[in-house]
Amino acid sequence: MSRRQLLNAPDDLVAEALEGLELTHPGLLRRDPEFHFVQRRQPATGKVGLVSGGGSGHEPLHAGFVGTGMLDVAVAGAVFASPTALQIQAGTVAADSGRGVLQIVKNYTGDVLNFQIAAEIADDDDIAVESVLVDDDIATSSEQVGPGRRGTAAVVIVEKVCGAAAEAGADLPTLAALGRRVVGQARTLSLALDACTHPGDSTPAFELPDDLVEFGVGIHGERGVSRIPFAPGDELVSQLVEPVVAELELARGDAVIAIVNGLGSTYPLQLSLAARRMHHLLGGRGITVARSLVGSYVTSLDMNGFSVTLVRADDELVRLWDAPVRTATLCW
Amino acid sequence: MSRRQLLNAPDDLVAEALEGLELTHPGLLRRDPEFHFVQRRQPATGKVGLVSGGGSGHEPLHAGFVGTGMLDVAVAGAVFASPTALQIQAGTVAADSGRGVLQIVKNYTGDVLNFQIAAEIADDDDIAVESVLVDDDIATSSEQVGPGRRGTAAVVIVEKVCGAAAEAGADLPTLAALGRRVVGQARTLSLALDACTHPGDSTPAFELPDDLVEFGVGIHGERGVSRIPFAPGDELVSQLVEPVVAELELARGDAVIAIVNGLGSTYPLQLSLAARRMHHLLGGRGITVARSLVGSYVTSLDMNGFSVTLVRADDELVRLWDAPVRTATLCW
Repeated sequence: MSRRQLLNAPDDLVAEALEGLELTHPGLLRRDPEFHFVQRRQPATGKVGLVSGGGSGHEPLHAGFVGTGMLDVAVAGAVFASPTALQIQAGTVAADSGRGVLQIVKNYTGDVLNFQIAAEIADDDDIAVESVLVDDDIATSSEQVGPGRRGTAAVVIVEKVCGAAAEAGADLPTLAALGRRVVGQARTLSLALDACTHPGDSTPAFELPDDLVEFGVGIHGERGVSRIPFAPGDELVSQLVEPVVAELELARGDAVIAIVNGLGSTYPLQLSLAARRMHHLLGGRGITVARSLVGSYVTSLDMNGFSVTLVRADDELVRLWDAPVRTATLCW
Repeated sequence: MSRRQLLNAPDDLVAEALEGLELTHPGLLRRDPEFHFVQRRQPATGKVGLVSGGGSGHEPLHAGFVGTGMLDVAVAGAVFASPTALQIQAGTVAADSGRGVLQIVKNYTGDVLNFQIAAEIADDDDIAVESVLVDDDIATSSEQVGPGRRGTAAVVIVEKVCGAAAEAGADLPTLAALGRRVVGQARTLSLALDACTHPGDSTPAFELPDDLVEFGVGIHGERGVSRIPFAPGDELVSQLVEPVVAELELARGDAVIAIVNGLGSTYPLQLSLAARRMHHLLGGRGITVARSLVGSYVTSLDMNGFSVTLVRADDELVRLWDAPVRTATLCW
């Protein structure tokens, strides 16, 4: 047994947690105990179904975003491992009410493969499926060969915006185009001050010297792309915001939807500190933060770190962002 | 400089975070930069004002609960330190719209004293004030002499229920009686698997051997009342639930509102695991969980641990719990 993690058997964690989630939200959520997905307690009809999912350990993503105005189904893999194609297929069937299913997939090899297989099976069953691949993490953008940019916190914005459009009656091709448009103008960068510890392990995924910060981390306990000197919080926030602004070529007069996302154990005072700095940096460049979301939404177990996501915004995206949403995590 | 905390100068953290919170919720919240309180952007009128507050480091408590159906004003002290009487007094004036102000105070010596002084000043200014003292933590109930039980997560239920009643037009004596009734039937117990680290410190508030758990902790980095052997999660949850059930003398046929509250770095999978076990334990005794809330609502910086709060529920409390709420943290 490892030291002092709140845990039963590590292999039981995801199933136990899904049961706990269903017990916590009996009016909102239903879990499928066989295929480990969560769906709306009252499935929607007459709209395109939205399915997302991926490895566990990133909660409240994705199950916390199931509900009116956002997802229909969230499929849960083991911790940091893709759900199987059969799980995703079962979730796809559950989400379909005749107008097809939009898959929202974070760009990891296993997820991409398994969502693709599920889409092919669904097609054989005459369920139309389109897929939006979310690949916002610029830390991995220099890989010319390989899987490309990882998918991280921008997935929340894709789910919210596409969810609103689906609720308003948009058809499958329209939703897919909308999702791809959001992805095209969304970028994220992350850093960690301490690694996460995998359930059942007794040591963190990596160790850092006291004076260094892991820069460009992902959400699976992997190392970042470099190590940078530890610095005051405002300076660390700059080191995330500036490259994202540059990558999106944001300039005076532009507007964004922003997420300051905690990766696990970074606490609200710290995330608000980061939000303040982000607002000051963007405001100083004449960039309007049209909307922002600050909290731990796309986590990596108990990792101490945070990410900054910016999405170039226009009136349509802000309107869809503002549309009503009722999920366990987002509600307005 | 301490190692790897997302932080500027420790003494600036609270003010910076309040500014960040206001920037994140411009339509919902306004901060007072002089007295460090947060209030509704559009102050309510024609209702009793609800004011809470206390030391910082427990976010989203209390500012995350400011909004329609819950608090009018939340006053922020330094980390783990009471706000001053002058701060509370300024918040009391801001919350009053002519029908008086209900203070909701967690039972700590400094908070009790400063809210009391603020109430006396307010009385001199012809603002009627009543106070509800929240003292739910049974780990401290054996202190026959001294300040009595600490106030912890039950404060969220007091704020929600009194907030709903205030919104519905209840007068000040009615709200005070309601709050005291909730307090009288609410108890909490907490444990920690790792201590928190105070902003600017380089080491945690206490160290634990690998095989022990700190039992009966508070929310200020203090040690618990005892150390118990580390055990699987379900067993640790039992050790919190059973004493609370006994203290409230809950029996078959009773109903509760429950909170499984993360203290900082305990992550959603783990809190859902704890929620599942709590539901099973209570269900096995024939106790109905009428409503539950699972998440990190009353934290202690980055402490790894959790608490279980039970409140004996009746139809009135459930109805007030279910009433609409629009805050940064709770919304339905």
